[in-house]
Amino acid sequence: MGKNLTSRAEDYSKWYNELVVKSDLAENSGVRGCMVIKPYGYAIWEKMQGQLDKMFKETGHENAYFPLFIPKSYLSKEASHVEGFAKECAVVTHYRLKNAEDGSGIVVDENAKLEEELIVRPTSETIIWDTFRKWVQSYRDLPLKINQWANVVRWEMRTRLFLRTAEFLWQEGHTAHATREEAVEEAELMMNVYADFAEKYMGVPVIKGTKTESERFAGAEETYCIEALMQDGKALQAGTSHFLGQNFAKAFDVKFANKEGKQEYVWATSWGVSTRLMGALVMTHSDDNGLVLPPQLAPIQVVIVPIYKGLDQLDAISQKVDPLVKALRDKGVTVKYDTRDTHKPGFKFNEYELKGVPVRLAVGQRDLANGTFEVARRDTLTKEIVKAEEIVDKVVSLMDEIQENIFKKALDYRKEHITKVDSYDEFKKVIEEKGGFVSAHWDGTVETEDRIKEETKATIRCIPLDAENEEGKCMVTGKPSHKRVLFAKAY
Amino acid sequence: MGKNLTSRAEDYSKWYNELVVKSDLAENSGVRGCMVIKPYGYAIWEKMQGQLDKMFKETGHENAYFPLFIPKSYLSKEASHVEGFAKECAVVTHYRLKNAEDGSGIVVDENAKLEEELIVRPTSETIIWDTFRKWVQSYRDLPLKINQWANVVRWEMRTRLFLRTAEFLWQEGHTAHATREEAVEEAELMMNVYADFAEKYMGVPVIKGTKTESERFAGAEETYCIEALMQDGKALQAGTSHFLGQNFAKAFDVKFANKEGKQEYVWATSWGVSTRLMGALVMTHSDDNGLVLPPQLAPIQVVIVPIYKGLDQLDAISQKVDPLVKALRDKGVTVKYDTRDTHKPGFKFNEYELKGVPVRLAVGQRDLANGTFEVARRDTLTKEIVKAEEIVDKVVSLMDEIQENIFKKALDYRKEHITKVDSYDEFKKVIEEKGGFVSAHWDGTVETEDRIKEETKATIRCIPLDAENEEGKCMVTGKPSHKRVLFAKAY
Repeated sequence: MGKNLTSRAEDYSKWYNELVVKSDLAENSGVRGCMVIKPYGYAIWEKMQGQLDKMFKETGHENAYFPLFIPKSYLSKEASHVEGFAKECAVVTHYRLKNAEDGSGIVVDENAKLEEELIVRPTSETIIWDTFRKWVQSYRDLPLKINQWANVVRWEMRTRLFLRTAEFLWQEGHTAHATREEAVEEAELMMNVYADFAEKYMGVPVIKGTKTESERFAGAEETYCIEALMQDGKALQAGTSHFLGQNFAKAFDVKFANKEGKQEYVWATSWGVSTRLMGALVMTHSDDNGLVLPPQLAPIQVVIVPIYKGLDQLDAISQKVDPLVKALRDKGVTVKYDTRDTHKPGFKFNEYELKGVPVRLAVGQRDLANGTFEVARRDTLTKEIVKAEEIVDKVVSLMDEIQENIFKKALDYRKEHITKVDSYDEFKKVIEEKGGFVSAHWDGTVETEDRIKEETKATIRCIPLDAENEEGKCMVTGKPSHKRVLFAKAY
Repeated sequence: MGKNLTSRAEDYSKWYNELVVKSDLAENSGVRGCMVIKPYGYAIWEKMQGQLDKMFKETGHENAYFPLFIPKSYLSKEASHVEGFAKECAVVTHYRLKNAEDGSGIVVDENAKLEEELIVRPTSETIIWDTFRKWVQSYRDLPLKINQWANVVRWEMRTRLFLRTAEFLWQEGHTAHATREEAVEEAELMMNVYADFAEKYMGVPVIKGTKTESERFAGAEETYCIEALMQDGKALQAGTSHFLGQNFAKAFDVKFANKEGKQEYVWATSWGVSTRLMGALVMTHSDDNGLVLPPQLAPIQVVIVPIYKGLDQLDAISQKVDPLVKALRDKGVTVKYDTRDTHKPGFKFNEYELKGVPVRLAVGQRDLANGTFEVARRDTLTKEIVKAEEIVDKVVSLMDEIQENIFKKALDYRKEHITKVDSYDEFKKVIEEKGGFVSAHWDGTVETEDRIKEETKATIRCIPLDAENEEGKCMVTGKPSHKRVLFAKAY
């Protein structure tokens, strides 16, 4: 299997697109902007889902399911929300097709026009808050902590596999609280859950922060985010958690009787991560040979490739491998023993390298004679010979080592790519030539933010939560600033 | 918590609707025909999903995800398929809203009309076979065994929670094979998987069979089904598995090179079960006091209710209950210890009865003194006193006993409700007065089938797989028949 993969240095964007398709993660479909997530890609997404779902449940959330469709009037109830989503939504206007009278085929039946158009959900705040009104009466019904795994549609004009697609899969959490403080706490908690997931499972280091007003979610009072850095120096927003204030409670009239019996509006949060995480995963770790997957999310953690001629040799190898497969599975390691006789070992090596399988074991006649295995690490592309009696421990410890190593590598890259600058000229130079995050003073106005975006294509990724107070001057206007913010070009 | 539940005898249909809402399974939404699946209902669905997904993977299937939207032209490619779905589909015609020029609000932007309308998938054969064309070249690519968990939309005019909703959740399996025999075998295998799941996990006995031509899936050559019987004597189709022949391969030009290098069309199956299973679960086991859930699918298998006055008494009870909770969890039992002080024990008893929790333990001062628990079974509504040292074993064995008992009860009901008849008069009488399945001879024509349906509202549910050859005469026309088929009124 020749990989024929464009290198990152040659064309990072092309490398990404080719890699996603060639490694069987996803492909474009016949429907504009909508992707097909292929079995190998979906298996990674399922692992992400499984872990996130566990973390949501451990923090007291329950899953539910709300309608795909949102009546147009619902979307309009929260002013900034409709402003944010109306321009890119799929609109259902009819509920029937019929045979054309002129025999030209199947056409929309104009007699089956909906009284009110339905929007395919771009996000579900409106339909969910319309439901929460029925679920919340008293302080005893709060907090209400709901999550939904669903598909959503945003009619993006320029799409890219996983990073920006018209339809994508995600989870959206929606919670209702009795007090502002509790809602803010929830929004921060979920940002932290996302950060933990990204770092511990995806091996992707992230910076936690808040968005500026102009980058906030449509309808939020505060948007918390986690920002990752890709290998081409561009940032990627990997998850957001919103404190929605009482905006949706007021729009949908969701009140509760407090302990004193007084009616109050409920406080809200919402938070989500999507199949976009798949893009972040690919772009953080992978190399010119293909995917590099963290053991925690790899559908196959270890592959064993036999090197043999004829069935007798394969039998001899299998006698050694079969108990090893069992021993590794007993330790919770996902193993594939690839005995296909339709492909040569070299083809298989290439294939599993392309697919990012963390550890590859090879075993041939000499290994049989010596009682050894050849162990190859995908992350470092190094090989070593390990004795059969040590192989299980070796593989088990490699799972942790590789997980830690790829995180560290990504963290080192990010550390090298956060640059403090104090002048706009320097800023432009760094953004253009080095990339990465640029830490700079900004005067806090939308005007300056817009000007920087227009002139450099860099946006404020976040105001980092751990940013220290530091008196300074806006690099553009010279006006006073008390904190540095992080800029970057972004996906 | 008063249940105020209509009894089954009074109005079965009303009982069902009330129960689904009151037990927190689901409710209607503001969107016509679309339901909200509430956390308790969704927790049951998740258990169903988890078990089915495991069974699909054990039989060699992989999950993937395909687009929500289907271009109109795709749907039209398979003639009987479009015929079956065009009359009830949601059609996306535009991709943007805008502010009305007269200030009357948000309206569809007529400048954002799609060149080709998109249908919200009612089922995914067409989009999937359009993709399979790219995935299948050679016999080495076969069989291709894919499953998708997704939402689908069919614009039903009369909807009922879980049983018939405009949007529903389901899984749809789609497989491609080199030979007719292998595809037929796959379709039969999945029917058997569904039957196993229904009987062993849901506790719902089912009859396996094939559909008559007029009841077949639009585009199928054979539809296998599992048919269950509800407590009101009406049948419910709980799952279907279709042998699709080469219809979709021909419509989407999916060919493979066989071992001799010749191009052949691929053979197909598809199969699905949906949130409709939730309706079957409710209607098979539940009673006038509320849900009765099988332990295998119950989100809470055991609830423990303390009976106490004041915190001292509660503390004393908790000292006994806490280790029990741990011991049960160690045995894999899902336990809730309900220490809410906002509700009285009687309220809690009612609530868990309504929600179908299989086992309830109560412990008060006398139990503390005697070293006992009161054990109540939801399925039989019986109580007994059990010694503390025997309680773990008791509860563990009750899980199996209850699972078996509710299956047996449903099976006994069904046995009593399969009636053999040999005249059309008798048929009408049984269908009208007793209900259930009626086993009768039929001449095999669509005309007779239609006439019976029109005159009695009963349809042929299936030609049972285990039906014996038996010479007879059609009860309506007197024409010869070689096998009895099963009729029933159905959901």
